Amino acid sequence: MRKGDTIFFEQAPAVIGWGSAAGKKESEGPLSAEFDALYPDTRMGQTTWEAAEQAFARSALETALQKSHLQAPHLDGVFAGDLQCQCTASGYLMRSIDTPFLGLYGACSTFAEGMGLAACLVATHAMRRAAVCTSSHFCSAERQFRTPLDYGGKRTPTSQWTVTGAGCAVLSQADEGKHPRITKAVFGRVRDFNVTDINNMGAAMAPAACETLLRFFRDTETAPADYDRIYTGDLGIVGTRLLRTLLQQEGFVLDNHSDCGMIVFDRETQNVGAGGSGAGCSASVFCAHILPRLSDGRMKRCLLMSTGALMSQITSLQGESIPGVAHLIEVCGPTEEGQS
Amino acid sequence: MRKGDTIFFEQAPAVIGWGSAAGKKESEGPLSAEFDALYPDTRMGQTTWEAAEQAFARSALETALQKSHLQAPHLDGVFAGDLQCQCTASGYLMRSIDTPFLGLYGACSTFAEGMGLAACLVATHAMRRAAVCTSSHFCSAERQFRTPLDYGGKRTPTSQWTVTGAGCAVLSQADEGKHPRITKAVFGRVRDFNVTDINNMGAAMAPAACETLLRFFRDTETAPADYDRIYTGDLGIVGTRLLRTLLQQEGFVLDNHSDCGMIVFDRETQNVGAGGSGAGCSASVFCAHILPRLSDGRMKRCLLMSTGALMSQITSLQGESIPGVAHLIEVCGPTEEGQS
Repeated sequence: MRKGDTIFFEQAPAVIGWGSAAGKKESEGPLSAEFDALYPDTRMGQTTWEAAEQAFARSALETALQKSHLQAPHLDGVFAGDLQCQCTASGYLMRSIDTPFLGLYGACSTFAEGMGLAACLVATHAMRRAAVCTSSHFCSAERQFRTPLDYGGKRTPTSQWTVTGAGCAVLSQADEGKHPRITKAVFGRVRDFNVTDINNMGAAMAPAACETLLRFFRDTETAPADYDRIYTGDLGIVGTRLLRTLLQQEGFVLDNHSDCGMIVFDRETQNVGAGGSGAGCSASVFCAHILPRLSDGRMKRCLLMSTGALMSQITSLQGESIPGVAHLIEVCGPTEEGQS
Repeated sequence: MRKGDTIFFEQAPAVIGWGSAAGKKESEGPLSAEFDALYPDTRMGQTTWEAAEQAFARSALETALQKSHLQAPHLDGVFAGDLQCQCTASGYLMRSIDTPFLGLYGACSTFAEGMGLAACLVATHAMRRAAVCTSSHFCSAERQFRTPLDYGGKRTPTSQWTVTGAGCAVLSQADEGKHPRITKAVFGRVRDFNVTDINNMGAAMAPAACETLLRFFRDTETAPADYDRIYTGDLGIVGTRLLRTLLQQEGFVLDNHSDCGMIVFDRETQNVGAGGSGAGCSASVFCAHILPRLSDGRMKRCLLMSTGALMSQITSLQGESIPGVAHLIEVCGPTEEGQS
């Protein structure tokens, strides 16, 4: 079941339903037509940005349940996390979801961490069905990590724009080949190359992304060409270039790669710096853009590697560098086998 | 493998090593002689409280590895979490531990959440060996959740004193009956009874603790008397009384119960309000006090239910109530079977 850092699922869990929700800026981006729900009011009628983020997560979760023909009590667990201090978007959302709650923190890598963990528990029958739901919100994240919006701080070109949105996927024990399946997972190792610029998370995360991908290729004896596409969480343009350079040094050419942070926004016209980021970025792109393509056969086999920068505002103010981590899942179309 | 919310481990993972570390106030408490390492300098020679907390976690992890006769590369994963914003005590510690990192957030319930998850992965061979490590620090927690120490705020009698310390346990696939084993796990549901007092977390967590315990008793058809002792994470005196009252209403008398937050300090002499708390509380007490008793036969079968209050400073300032969650594990001595 395991080789190196890669976990192989003999009974690959099926992704039986998924949902995505996104805000105004995302609705003006390239993936606009693909999200399940778009909300022009990024406050979602709430009095705080933090409560608004909960509402995005709720929308994604409700859509995913609906598409799965399930209700919350049918789930054996919800794996959830976000960027707010003490993960309150998820914890507070779970007040109204009467299902066991497994709180995760992997910064922007949380979605793939959750999918990997949920796949482990569902594949081995510890859970029959589980949901993975992660979210982020531009306004709650700016306050959390940088400065409150009211401060009107100038953004640097390497900075990334936190996606306002959420994604949720429901995993179930193997079906009759009707749904995409999670076939492998790698939980990443923390890497820190001493980047201290809070406005350059792409550079901080690229070494961890490279580490995880190299280990996966070695464990599975595969190469980029074995996949229709390799998606990274949110390295942005800076981290993407670094990842490709690092991989090239190891003999891998990454020419079938997309970064969720770069496809969710149009960097030319949307003033998002190096691209999108946030725990809701890879989650919403995976559910809006990737799963549908695996489901209808446009893609047969792909990788999602969500990347996370593990700093806080306190560690930044204390002059600490930014550790990165990257978790990976292999996802196959309904009738495809995982590469082995 | 599953009934209700309870996961049963057919091949119960063994806890092959453990370590605990604690600070000055803990060294003056009732469990002083039981911790593996006591550090009178609660700053651990570091320049920040946040870095000091990392050092406590590192001490517990290193002791656990040493007792397991393992080194970090022998682990397939470390499940870790803490109370700092963005879980930085764990994320930063993992920079120097070259092992896959699974970041968790369950507030003070994180240790039992991690033990449950690690047990699931080890029991099903997704991992051969995994460590669970959680920490807390009075000084980093006060700044995070209430006021900086320098403010000199007056404490209320219902408030709890965050344990400065950490605990780490190493799980491995079944051995030849030489070590304590994790035989069952329950991941808890979030409960919110509208407590808004940040200085009364025990009351906020008691309903979640009651919920988890009742579900476990129902799923396993057991009662308190089937266990040598039932440990809760850190309900303190207020939460403990509430839990016992709530359980009594359901027909269960809880007279073999200890709260980790109440046995780690002497409430009469140590000025700790309602008792101890923190992600390092149940972790360090489990590793210093509970596992040794299971290991040498003084106890045969017990429950650990860590409890968490899921608020942040931001949600408190926004007037939100405090959601609670409680995760549970059943742990048996080397030759005992879990109740089934």
